[in-house]
Amino acid sequence: MDNFTFYSPTLFAFGDGQAQTTGSLVRRFGGSKVLLVYGGGSVKRNGAYDAVTASLKEAGIPFQELSGIQANPRSGKVYEGIETVRKEGLDFLVALGGGSVIDTAKAIGMGAEYDGDFWDFFSGKTKIERSLPVGVILTIAAAGSEGSDSCVITHENGNLKWGIPKSDAVRPKFSVLDPRYTCSLPPYQTACGAVDMMAHICERYFSNTPDVALTDRLCEALLKTVVDAAPKAIADTNDYAARADLMWAGMLAHNNSCGVGRAQDWASHQMEHELSAFYDCAHGAGLAVVMPAWMEYVYTHDVMRFARFAVEVFGCEMDYAEPKNTALLGIRRLREFFRALGMPTTLKEIEGAKSEDIPKMVEHRREKPNGFPFGSFVKIGPEEMAEILRGTDL
Amino acid sequence: MDNFTFYSPTLFAFGDGQAQTTGSLVRRFGGSKVLLVYGGGSVKRNGAYDAVTASLKEAGIPFQELSGIQANPRSGKVYEGIETVRKEGLDFLVALGGGSVIDTAKAIGMGAEYDGDFWDFFSGKTKIERSLPVGVILTIAAAGSEGSDSCVITHENGNLKWGIPKSDAVRPKFSVLDPRYTCSLPPYQTACGAVDMMAHICERYFSNTPDVALTDRLCEALLKTVVDAAPKAIADTNDYAARADLMWAGMLAHNNSCGVGRAQDWASHQMEHELSAFYDCAHGAGLAVVMPAWMEYVYTHDVMRFARFAVEVFGCEMDYAEPKNTALLGIRRLREFFRALGMPTTLKEIEGAKSEDIPKMVEHRREKPNGFPFGSFVKIGPEEMAEILRGTDL
Repeated sequence: MDNFTFYSPTLFAFGDGQAQTTGSLVRRFGGSKVLLVYGGGSVKRNGAYDAVTASLKEAGIPFQELSGIQANPRSGKVYEGIETVRKEGLDFLVALGGGSVIDTAKAIGMGAEYDGDFWDFFSGKTKIERSLPVGVILTIAAAGSEGSDSCVITHENGNLKWGIPKSDAVRPKFSVLDPRYTCSLPPYQTACGAVDMMAHICERYFSNTPDVALTDRLCEALLKTVVDAAPKAIADTNDYAARADLMWAGMLAHNNSCGVGRAQDWASHQMEHELSAFYDCAHGAGLAVVMPAWMEYVYTHDVMRFARFAVEVFGCEMDYAEPKNTALLGIRRLREFFRALGMPTTLKEIEGAKSEDIPKMVEHRREKPNGFPFGSFVKIGPEEMAEILRGTDL
Repeated sequence: MDNFTFYSPTLFAFGDGQAQTTGSLVRRFGGSKVLLVYGGGSVKRNGAYDAVTASLKEAGIPFQELSGIQANPRSGKVYEGIETVRKEGLDFLVALGGGSVIDTAKAIGMGAEYDGDFWDFFSGKTKIERSLPVGVILTIAAAGSEGSDSCVITHENGNLKWGIPKSDAVRPKFSVLDPRYTCSLPPYQTACGAVDMMAHICERYFSNTPDVALTDRLCEALLKTVVDAAPKAIADTNDYAARADLMWAGMLAHNNSCGVGRAQDWASHQMEHELSAFYDCAHGAGLAVVMPAWMEYVYTHDVMRFARFAVEVFGCEMDYAEPKNTALLGIRRLREFFRALGMPTTLKEIEGAKSEDIPKMVEHRREKPNGFPFGSFVKIGPEEMAEILRGTDL
């Protein structure tokens, strides 16, 4: 186990009806004038918007609104939010939605406290020292941004989907997690969320760090939970127990509970960011395509870890004579699982995607600061990236 | 899953050499004059005292010392510490040691900020509103107080070993966890720690709350880790990987990561507190005696949960025809495991203990506010408590 620091000072209020505590939580963490950030109509249809605004009003907290945040959130909305915060003298951000809304609020929070362009944090020009406080009311179990120290924004100028270096300054002060709000999600979005959280765990699980027995088991506990709960939530959208498991697993998958003290990989995420930058596909859908192909490309690097994954997560029988068979079976099972959830698992299933774009995606990746190599379990250079992406062209 | 709030805002600095960050961590969390609380010579022998005091000096932080804290920490030292804090105008507590030292520092912290007797918080006379900040340098993996919201002190007047109602105000600001400091622990203390953390998990695991698949798996991941690592740490006291697993598992076992959203039991702890109040035995040793007896008394309440415990934690084969057999096998395995670690598992192995005292322990328990019934998985009244304790007289 490597040395580490773990600091997760977010207050999580979990369960049915917790959104009514929003106003008092904003007060507790020092907010007095709020920018409420959200997407479109779904938070109005599922009751979340009404519950949150009622709670803010009851607590006597005035708020402005910034709506229309979309998947793969864009820099334009961040600039707009920063301007509103400054003009109106707002001191607290409430993100009502999923990862895109939360990341937009986080970026506004860091940008509002900085004299220059907020994109400087993403381009690596400067380091995040502080941020306006952010609170979250989560309505999609997926990105884990409600408990994480990370943030991803797409800059319209150059179609750059980049993340910040991890920073405790962007951890939300509080996150309200009410599984009821996720019951109205369409199956496709529920599935995308499940893939995203499994990817967050796998990026930590496939590690070269020795002596990580405890976090290995925590990763497996989370993966098994998602494998168990996601099909239930899709079969019966109002299955509260399954929705609750997914929601809490999604947070634990990315607040780094299961990743402390071990090298992490993140190669699949890096490659998926190119997919969604090119085709604006859902992050989870892109991951469902990329991750099994990455696994097939790298599994020989540590056959026994992939065999363990197969046995512990999918209940495969161990082939002690040929562990390779077990390793490959586990990858196959993962792809079948994604497919059963209704996810794409090949490049051509993503709208607009074609294998001719692969070299362009590799080139686009080069523009990123420290674009190559990426990955830690296995180092991925331009040729390896191209080869993995060709592996999605089934 | 029940609704819950989870708030664990402690910064954990984990690994070899982390004690040298003590001074900067005290500064980060607003401390300028420290009371350094510790036990006896072990922290001087293992280098922890030197590392911590050097770090405080380097950061220019003056400190007073309160030493001589013993197992089952007493109220006398708490009163002494409160007086020193007030007289010297100290504003931060650094606990260097294990659960007894940390709980003493926590009690000093809450008492120093309160006009009345600190015991009022334990007797239920008043509620904890605030506390001086506490930082921890942990030297024993056991109690989990380094991340917890609880605190147990024994009042010399009446030999009352009581805890406070859980309060986020007493969570440490930071905890330094360096597994190296635990390498010099004698096998007996290592074993006591392992039992204590397993008990913290079991008190959460044996629950009547339905739909707790995720936390069930997290509990099992932690239990398996302790079952795997504790014998290794005892066989080779310098096994860093095993020491590291135990240290992080001990924190996770009690910061409530694995207990959120489910009713918790705590009956074994309540009964053990009487054992250690009567015989001043190590908490872990008392738990090794009480917990299997409690299990044998209650297992018929939920045979399948005990069968699952046997299969998932000890790898027992499931007897599908007679799950009761599997349940009982798991309890037997637990007792054997404790015995193999060198722990007592019967009343008579505790120095001075005799079955004639059982009625007195039951009577002593009655003095406690809301003394009976206790437990949540199965309610325990005076007769049940006597019966369980008689079950330890093997």
